[in-house]
Amino acid sequence: MCAAAEAPQSTQTDAQLRELVDGYLQGVVAEISNERLREAGEYALLGGGKRVRPVLALRTCQLLGGSLDDGMPVACGFEMIHAFSLIHDDLPALDNDDMRRGKPTVHKAFGESLAILAGDMLQSMALVVTAKSPRNADRLVLEVATATCAMIEGQAWDTEGGMPASLTEGEKLDLIHRNKTAALIRGACRSGAIAADAGSDAIDAIDRWGAALGMMFQVVDDILDETQTSEHLGKTAGKDQEQGKMTYPAVHGLKKAQSYVRELELEAADALSGFGDRAQELRNITNALAVRTR
Amino acid sequence: MCAAAEAPQSTQTDAQLRELVDGYLQGVVAEISNERLREAGEYALLGGGKRVRPVLALRTCQLLGGSLDDGMPVACGFEMIHAFSLIHDDLPALDNDDMRRGKPTVHKAFGESLAILAGDMLQSMALVVTAKSPRNADRLVLEVATATCAMIEGQAWDTEGGMPASLTEGEKLDLIHRNKTAALIRGACRSGAIAADAGSDAIDAIDRWGAALGMMFQVVDDILDETQTSEHLGKTAGKDQEQGKMTYPAVHGLKKAQSYVRELELEAADALSGFGDRAQELRNITNALAVRTR
Repeated sequence: MCAAAEAPQSTQTDAQLRELVDGYLQGVVAEISNERLREAGEYALLGGGKRVRPVLALRTCQLLGGSLDDGMPVACGFEMIHAFSLIHDDLPALDNDDMRRGKPTVHKAFGESLAILAGDMLQSMALVVTAKSPRNADRLVLEVATATCAMIEGQAWDTEGGMPASLTEGEKLDLIHRNKTAALIRGACRSGAIAADAGSDAIDAIDRWGAALGMMFQVVDDILDETQTSEHLGKTAGKDQEQGKMTYPAVHGLKKAQSYVRELELEAADALSGFGDRAQELRNITNALAVRTR
Repeated sequence: MCAAAEAPQSTQTDAQLRELVDGYLQGVVAEISNERLREAGEYALLGGGKRVRPVLALRTCQLLGGSLDDGMPVACGFEMIHAFSLIHDDLPALDNDDMRRGKPTVHKAFGESLAILAGDMLQSMALVVTAKSPRNADRLVLEVATATCAMIEGQAWDTEGGMPASLTEGEKLDLIHRNKTAALIRGACRSGAIAADAGSDAIDAIDRWGAALGMMFQVVDDILDETQTSEHLGKTAGKDQEQGKMTYPAVHGLKKAQSYVRELELEAADALSGFGDRAQELRNITNALAVRTR
């Protein structure tokens, strides 16, 4: 069912992909003229991070016959949107977090005004970068911008409430997670396929994989927030509970959360079945994200 | 020199264009699912405003043979970017303004967290809207996102400083104004031409017009801040001076500011000379923006 049966297998390790992503991001952020704004952007964008979203986009792009050049702009676009979202989420008016990736958050290190501006800047630069994609730039821009809107809606539901009273707690939680976290991950996967100019069947399969993966990523995050230390995570643990946030363990219990991760992992694997052996790297990523401890 | 000699003359008044823009924006913002976020977005986007940028884009688009449908998405995209910039600029950490268009600012009316999120939302929705342009969507996205980056850089220079010490005060002021305000106005003009699929000569002429117009707009703003009351402007007057901001009158004096407005008006008119009588509406806008009192 899926196109690109003759796709060249990728030869880079995940670490090598991350290095290429870091190099590309470095080049992008170096173009900010204002020195303080550039420093804040570099601090947020180049200071660690697992590069989950760009690796997902690039691996998907390669699977479907696209080159690294095809996928790199939108892969980095999604990482920049992710970085922007962390800067703004950490602000005092929102989650009020002091630590991120084992370092002071951007507003702690650079002040609140620069944190707001640096977040804004990364958001728009992400679209500039994506608009320069060699193939399907207009569709990719729509993917990035639409996923960003969903992410912001999710953040609004998470911090401001306002959900329809008719929804169960489980449905409310699903709405938050699907938007706040899963939308960007799913969008990164979809975009890898679109950057490779894949057919609609392949995009549909990748979409299903990305949706399961994105949800799984957040449920694992919820579990880690409850079971790991701040030191291990590099950010404040136990914060969800303290702030009365809706998390999967809080609504359904830790045991059910863990079995839901397993369920989503199987759903993700099933979505990839049509690609056969060629999708082994995507399966590896799925598994690594299921069992991660930070 | 300029294309579209047979372009249909527009039949709408500026007031009618503003009504069409309002209707389009209403439809866009109604798509925000989270009720509080939607209310904050509507408050910021539909609560008055001169609609300078969309009218510039639409008039330019019509002059060069494009239809309202061609220009409307990007015209509204620029207005949404403008609205986002005002929400974030007014935040306590930035300009800390309580009043805008005669009403409490968004963070005063909805709280700081919603103001940050609503600004973020309008920024990304602007790109979603622009990406759906019927013609040259990829180029238009690049115009919006690039102008937004310039605007944010300008805001950073304005509030954070960090300009090269080698620049004179006049050059620093020019750098702030060219980015903070002129980039969006110039981008809106350029985008009207690109939406109409104009040739490069026409785009160059419009670019020159938009650059002069954008700079003129901010110098007039500087003058009004010093010479008008808060009540008349609907926002806090005299704030630039109070905050020690670099303004044209502060650096060069009020008299020179007023003669610079005249100079820019002539430069803008000259840029339009190749279009002959057909550009009369653009000349009218130029003049109206030069003599505005709010």
